[in-house]
Amino acid sequence: MNDRIKKLLEDLNDLDHDMAAITYTESLLGFDSMTTASKDGVSARSEVISFVSTLYFNTLINPRVDRLLKELSDVYNELDDLSKAKYNYFRREYEKISPIPVKEYADYQSLLVESSNAWEEAKNANDFSIFAPYLKKVIDTTKRFIDHRGYEGHPYNTLLNDYEPGVTVDMLDGFFEELKASIVPLVQRIQEKPKPNTSFLSNTFSIDEQEAFSLYIMESLGFRMDGGSLSESEHPFTQNMSPDDVRITTHFHENDLINPIFSTIHETGHGLYEQNISKSIGFSCLATGVSMGIHESQSRLYENNFGRNSAFWQAHMPKLKELFPNELKDISIQDFIRATNKVEPSLIRIDADEVTYPLHIMVRYELEKMLMEEDVDIQELPKLWADKYEQYVGVRPTTEAEGILQDVHWSEGLMGYFPSYALGSAYAAQFEHAMEKELSVDECLKHGDMKTLLDWLAHHIHQYGSTITPSEIIQRATGEAFNPKYFTDYLVKKYSLLYGLKE
Amino acid sequence: MNDRIKKLLEDLNDLDHDMAAITYTESLLGFDSMTTASKDGVSARSEVISFVSTLYFNTLINPRVDRLLKELSDVYNELDDLSKAKYNYFRREYEKISPIPVKEYADYQSLLVESSNAWEEAKNANDFSIFAPYLKKVIDTTKRFIDHRGYEGHPYNTLLNDYEPGVTVDMLDGFFEELKASIVPLVQRIQEKPKPNTSFLSNTFSIDEQEAFSLYIMESLGFRMDGGSLSESEHPFTQNMSPDDVRITTHFHENDLINPIFSTIHETGHGLYEQNISKSIGFSCLATGVSMGIHESQSRLYENNFGRNSAFWQAHMPKLKELFPNELKDISIQDFIRATNKVEPSLIRIDADEVTYPLHIMVRYELEKMLMEEDVDIQELPKLWADKYEQYVGVRPTTEAEGILQDVHWSEGLMGYFPSYALGSAYAAQFEHAMEKELSVDECLKHGDMKTLLDWLAHHIHQYGSTITPSEIIQRATGEAFNPKYFTDYLVKKYSLLYGLKE
Repeated sequence: MNDRIKKLLEDLNDLDHDMAAITYTESLLGFDSMTTASKDGVSARSEVISFVSTLYFNTLINPRVDRLLKELSDVYNELDDLSKAKYNYFRREYEKISPIPVKEYADYQSLLVESSNAWEEAKNANDFSIFAPYLKKVIDTTKRFIDHRGYEGHPYNTLLNDYEPGVTVDMLDGFFEELKASIVPLVQRIQEKPKPNTSFLSNTFSIDEQEAFSLYIMESLGFRMDGGSLSESEHPFTQNMSPDDVRITTHFHENDLINPIFSTIHETGHGLYEQNISKSIGFSCLATGVSMGIHESQSRLYENNFGRNSAFWQAHMPKLKELFPNELKDISIQDFIRATNKVEPSLIRIDADEVTYPLHIMVRYELEKMLMEEDVDIQELPKLWADKYEQYVGVRPTTEAEGILQDVHWSEGLMGYFPSYALGSAYAAQFEHAMEKELSVDECLKHGDMKTLLDWLAHHIHQYGSTITPSEIIQRATGEAFNPKYFTDYLVKKYSLLYGLKE
Repeated sequence: MNDRIKKLLEDLNDLDHDMAAITYTESLLGFDSMTTASKDGVSARSEVISFVSTLYFNTLINPRVDRLLKELSDVYNELDDLSKAKYNYFRREYEKISPIPVKEYADYQSLLVESSNAWEEAKNANDFSIFAPYLKKVIDTTKRFIDHRGYEGHPYNTLLNDYEPGVTVDMLDGFFEELKASIVPLVQRIQEKPKPNTSFLSNTFSIDEQEAFSLYIMESLGFRMDGGSLSESEHPFTQNMSPDDVRITTHFHENDLINPIFSTIHETGHGLYEQNISKSIGFSCLATGVSMGIHESQSRLYENNFGRNSAFWQAHMPKLKELFPNELKDISIQDFIRATNKVEPSLIRIDADEVTYPLHIMVRYELEKMLMEEDVDIQELPKLWADKYEQYVGVRPTTEAEGILQDVHWSEGLMGYFPSYALGSAYAAQFEHAMEKELSVDECLKHGDMKTLLDWLAHHIHQYGSTITPSEIIQRATGEAFNPKYFTDYLVKKYSLLYGLKE
């Protein structure tokens, strides 16, 4: 390697190191906001978040980095793979942010803090009008940013690419059409069958015992307990600080056994992805999951494909019954699995079952697409939301809290994010199908051998972090490009069996 | 105000804003390390802490700030009081840090992360040799920094000034002589009297109920619950993010009622100081307590002068008995107060009673003074420590964990910090004496009227934040300079009464 390239790589690694430190700081501020930070501290917190965002901006967007990226581009073919990946990562980030004036960028970060607070207040008060002016500002800013950044095909594509590189409106239109064609009739057939008994799930379950089970199941799935933590927050989430410090949260309810358990399993799936990123990447912006879709594929694989599976509970029901001997008396694994896979059209996305879930995403996908291409009157949104729910999910919200105010995402500027949830489920089915060629998932689950499953995932998916693209991961891990057919096949097969339908 | 001054003040306020944001980030990283951060995450965390320290350094130490401070110095007399205070603050920080080369500064921050971890390991293993090489590096670096910075009179003065501006070895030598002269005979006389019954304090007390009492007492003392939080950590501490986000921690033990309660009261004292800093200071480096000594005066005033006082428990014993009706059956307020004020020479500083506590500080004061002026063999430290404990406290540690390894401070580079604990107790007594001229502390305590007491403290002490010096606070609040006589008088009076001694 010649001296010039050596010097360029030193500069690239220094940039990566500083950006990783700034990202860590942003992550910590975010995690803290959702867990420990005080209600009244929002004003100082918002000053700090804005300061750190500006620091992120200034560290990346300056003539020195511009020149570095240009010079690296000239010698790209001579770089090692990790350096290529770093170059590509910063080139993408540079092109994403550099078109936006620094003042607009910093103002937007402050707006997001205010808008999240307004959303929370609005949701508690069940009053969209509190949130509406902030949402309008977020949407207007998002559209202005797309104008600055440009787009190909459809303005929404620019946002989709931020969370799932390579995904477009054309591709998602086809994906959701396929889901709709398969899921809507499946839901109808399920609705004709008797509902499973779920009454036992709302007994009173002590929080201390629930927490004990959450810790047990995290560890059983292979989560390194010294490399992360479990906390409580209003909504469960995962925040990685580094592969050795991965924080998952859950939320316990005394009269709900199921959501806390499956939230923990879901977040542990995210956590395992982060924990098993190769150490060889080092302290770097690439030492994190590559996209929201691939991330969600891991959480959903653990939650739905592994967790909501009777083989899994052959290994773990004894522990659950040990903690809740009276509450779960006379409940068989079959009862439990039927109850935890109950399919029923409902209003709240995060409580939705695996089958109707993608329909909730369709509503958001279509609204976001519309918001990005048309000039929608913000006051009309609650009605548009309700109409689409009625059309796709088959239920209509009667309040704003259970309608348009239910999700935090828009208040945080996360537009283009929702589709990755549905993609995640679809990727998960494709990954599981590929695993099945090499091992029996059910046999592993039945014997509590989570290590074999984790090893496969770590080897085929986790280790790469952000060094290769989502489509490369899918191609390498499954031997083919993304194909939603595996997901629809999986749903039809699983639920036909559970509900005794003819396939 | 002319345009030149206006421009200078804009620059000063921008500097203050950025430095406040960086300090917030450092505080959050510190708080997180002690609460949620994972064991294995130390390596990435240490990269980030070092990055933020370097950012602090670079933001303050550069030709632009150097010029700004010089120009402000020329027009000092024309500035408003808040701007004068900001100028003085940054001048002090500049003079403290600018003599230290940036590389040495950043290396030192990384060293402190490693050394804290080594200390923890050493303490758990009861093996000083694990910590010794790190401690040697910390001491050597500290001495090198003093060389860079210079000193007046005694090298240790430079460190003392970092935590308690204006304090010197000469002044502390006199202070500790006076304490020794008064405390040693007091302890002897107490030792001749029968010991209070403390057996009931180690019954089993449910952690949930203890937590409920901690939250109750925080709120009763006037802590704004939406402006902060209570967490658990190995050692109790207070971390302010802003006056509206003040975090206190405590540590519960099932077989210890007393330490958790008084830790919470102590940390709430720190917390109230931070919460009641004037809003007019804004988001600024000055919106925090002015010194460790003044800070400790507030925590100790609440813990000892207010909390370990029978009048206080007339208001709060009903709540404690409501939570622990069986565990505290037949225990009178008098029993409780005698037990919580038991005086007994012991090995562990943080468990020491109010009377013997300053003797623990004397040991550390003399050792630190010696370390800064002589070339002490690090291997000799455990023996030097034990000898001094025997000489001043009257007990000799038999293990390193209960001797030299007991405190975290040196591992974190906090040398010159310990004396402020003893100064805090002495300031507290002087403040209480001044309060008594205007109101009856006991009457307020008895009626649970904590607001009157807090209002006095907020008005005379808290509101100023760091806008005036510790000695100015003492002078304004008490009408005279610091005088340790109030502390020795307080101790003699309180304990003569409790133990039935002749004054």
